Amino acid sequence: MTVVQAKLMGMEPHHPERSEIELPAVLHALSDPHRLEIVRRLNEDDEPRPCGKFGFDISKSTMTHHFRTLREAGVIRQERQGTTKMTELRREDLDARFPGLLDAVLSSKTVHV
Amino acid sequence: MTVVQAKLMGMEPHHPERSEIELPAVLHALSDPHRLEIVRRLNEDDEPRPCGKFGFDISKSTMTHHFRTLREAGVIRQERQGTTKMTELRREDLDARFPGLLDAVLSSKTVHV
Repeated sequence: MTVVQAKLMGMEPHHPERSEIELPAVLHALSDPHRLEIVRRLNEDDEPRPCGKFGFDISKSTMTHHFRTLREAGVIRQERQGTTKMTELRREDLDARFPGLLDAVLSSKTVHV
Repeated sequence: MTVVQAKLMGMEPHHPERSEIELPAVLHALSDPHRLEIVRRLNEDDEPRPCGKFGFDISKSTMTHHFRTLREAGVIRQERQGTTKMTELRREDLDARFPGLLDAVLSSKTVHV
């Protein structure tokens, strides 16, 4: 099956193109302490992280909701690998679209989960 | 009536102290195109602006909701003057608390209302 066919069948998660990433959606995606912490951890990673490896004490369905919110806003990229999804920050896209935003958000010390 | 008495009677709107302003709440407050535009206009003002002078084509109750969301997050300050509320951006508080955030948000060209 090609990637296009997989997408058509809804098996590949949707990601907005860089030009489609909108500021209100990004700010909304970042407006939750857990989602901020996900972004903070991904920012420290050199490689994509499996979606189950964040260690928060919240339900899987809530985590899925957080990942979807971040992905649909264009903040993260998720790719299926077998039975898991590998997650990475769209740092380059965000920096190109909203210069300085992610640095300002990540340098804030006021987030605790 | 003193300001303290007015506050006790709930007549003065609540504003968080600078130290109480939290990043998720600020990002949420900024995650709406109309609220972003309010902040953008206030940022260009030299003096507080009457809350009725924004000229959006949306209902008064929706505007009130937007102002309350911004105020409770610590993004704007509102003070009653007679029958109106004067509104100003808490630029100094936000810059002290989250350096660079407001500049990054306001420099984005992707907001349209």
